[in-house]
Amino acid sequence: MRSKNRQVRLVARPEGIPAPEHFELVDDVVREPVDGEVLLRNDYLSIVPAMRGWVSAEKNYATQVAVGDVMRSAALATVLRSQHPDYREGDRVVGAFGWQEFATVPGGSNGPIDFKVDPAFMSDIPETSLLGVLGLTGLTAYFGLLEIGRPLPGDTVVVSSAAGSVGSCVGQIAKISGCRVVGIAGGPEKLRLCTEEYGFDAAVDYKAADFEPALARACQGGVDVYFDNTAGGISDAVMRHINVGARVIVCGTAAVSSWSGQVMGPRVERKLLVQRASMRGMLVYDYRQQFDRARDRLRDWVRDGRIRFQEDVLDGIESTLDSISRLYRGDNRGKLLVRLTRNP
Amino acid sequence: MRSKNRQVRLVARPEGIPAPEHFELVDDVVREPVDGEVLLRNDYLSIVPAMRGWVSAEKNYATQVAVGDVMRSAALATVLRSQHPDYREGDRVVGAFGWQEFATVPGGSNGPIDFKVDPAFMSDIPETSLLGVLGLTGLTAYFGLLEIGRPLPGDTVVVSSAAGSVGSCVGQIAKISGCRVVGIAGGPEKLRLCTEEYGFDAAVDYKAADFEPALARACQGGVDVYFDNTAGGISDAVMRHINVGARVIVCGTAAVSSWSGQVMGPRVERKLLVQRASMRGMLVYDYRQQFDRARDRLRDWVRDGRIRFQEDVLDGIESTLDSISRLYRGDNRGKLLVRLTRNP
Repeated sequence: MRSKNRQVRLVARPEGIPAPEHFELVDDVVREPVDGEVLLRNDYLSIVPAMRGWVSAEKNYATQVAVGDVMRSAALATVLRSQHPDYREGDRVVGAFGWQEFATVPGGSNGPIDFKVDPAFMSDIPETSLLGVLGLTGLTAYFGLLEIGRPLPGDTVVVSSAAGSVGSCVGQIAKISGCRVVGIAGGPEKLRLCTEEYGFDAAVDYKAADFEPALARACQGGVDVYFDNTAGGISDAVMRHINVGARVIVCGTAAVSSWSGQVMGPRVERKLLVQRASMRGMLVYDYRQQFDRARDRLRDWVRDGRIRFQEDVLDGIESTLDSISRLYRGDNRGKLLVRLTRNP
Repeated sequence: MRSKNRQVRLVARPEGIPAPEHFELVDDVVREPVDGEVLLRNDYLSIVPAMRGWVSAEKNYATQVAVGDVMRSAALATVLRSQHPDYREGDRVVGAFGWQEFATVPGGSNGPIDFKVDPAFMSDIPETSLLGVLGLTGLTAYFGLLEIGRPLPGDTVVVSSAAGSVGSCVGQIAKISGCRVVGIAGGPEKLRLCTEEYGFDAAVDYKAADFEPALARACQGGVDVYFDNTAGGISDAVMRHINVGARVIVCGTAAVSSWSGQVMGPRVERKLLVQRASMRGMLVYDYRQQFDRARDRLRDWVRDGRIRFQEDVLDGIESTLDSISRLYRGDNRGKLLVRLTRNP
């Protein structure tokens, strides 16, 4: 096997959205595993909006990626060599293996391996979905909407970044929950995805001049649950239409380009008070104990065609460099992945 | 008895804090009760911050007081004459009888009478407490802190307007709940009230130049529950110190002088997300079904000396005119009441 491990390291801490100049592609060596370790080949990397927070100087839920370190990333990988009793050559694993072609990591629960792929569980669903709809993306949608949003049948659920990987999953779980779903996305192609591919009741274009009137028309009875992936002006508009008792799930802030310094917006206190509404931040890792059950349900819904998803696949380790920017530009369609190998 | 009923009517809708010029003191006649009605003499009126919302043009949880109408107000009153089987002359009642000396109202559950005072329930607690610590003031503190804040023993609870009638009650219920309590108030006299009279662990002066460092020192382990009576810069400072899983109860917005137009402040989304914290608005009327049980507990705590309260009593119907401004200036010490009669 090749002894070169191409990897991407953080070289500068961005203010705002990470761009190619904040990273560096370097050649490292592939280290053979010692006792208790496995050597992995990363097949797919998962690109997520949260990566901005991991490299920012601002306090985050996770420790920052240090400047000079390999960029943190979830990956789907193949075991090439194992010095750990739980793994065999050819096993497929999911975990935080970073932006690199190979990783030599400790096996077991103390290392970065989250789980070994169970082919029986997957049935005929592609394994890459373990980085998306059956991974942290789908789990974020599931727990944010169901545990914090607590939607009731008949509720109007609004979701921003609605054509994205989390947003599309939120809307479809809301439909399964008997809700009316309004997606907010940018441009006609994404609106079409929302209504035709994902089955939302309506979709509204935040880039259109009549965004807020259109939102109001789409949410005639007001908004009961808002799954917020954006913050910013999009959310300010939704907040003006929330109902008494509304639940706002704060999941992402894609519309705020940088959190350095103080970012101002309309105060929410009076709206929350008058409507007795709530806003709550969510982090998927807080629900780790319930991941298995949620993954079972998501798998069933995917298999039954009740949840659809799309993948947007870039090729080669060098395509990671611009991948986070791409996500924040909204250029992707569906779950953004970087494929590092043609096999499998 | 006199046939003149002096009453205060709303004559102009204020932008911001209601002031004397928005009201007019007029002489009406005392109307004798017809079948099903009672004639009441208002003995005490309750002045509350929520009155700003009731007369504002902005959407409120309650319908606006119409221009030309008697100002809405809770009151403690005596039945002078009754044409309703449930009330007798001399009965004491609490309800929304307005800023006026007399009120002729329907008895029973369709009218403005909330309840008849039960002397056995009161034991030796003054009846005026039914407008304060045993009324909507204490109930607001009780349900906001306990139902929304859900404080755990050992939590650090911060409350703004801490020396006020709601705030002082919040802090004392938090102490009963086993929490560490930090009050935020303006000026040394109110700080002293917080720590010496109400037993808070610390009090911080928001008017002091070193407010935020002092707040940080008083909340070394961070803030678990924040009972927000003010919004504005006070709350912005508290938000910078909330812990993972913190609960913010949005109860009042006294520090925002007017909600006309768009009031800006630091965006809360990222803080809520990173800390998985929540902000939720509360309205005491949503807990009506549980009022009796809460009032029982508050009564016991008052009787046992675990909750103390102060009253700030103004005399005469004409003193209502400036009373809301007085509240927002923070000139009052404790529950603000207007006394209309020397007897009782």
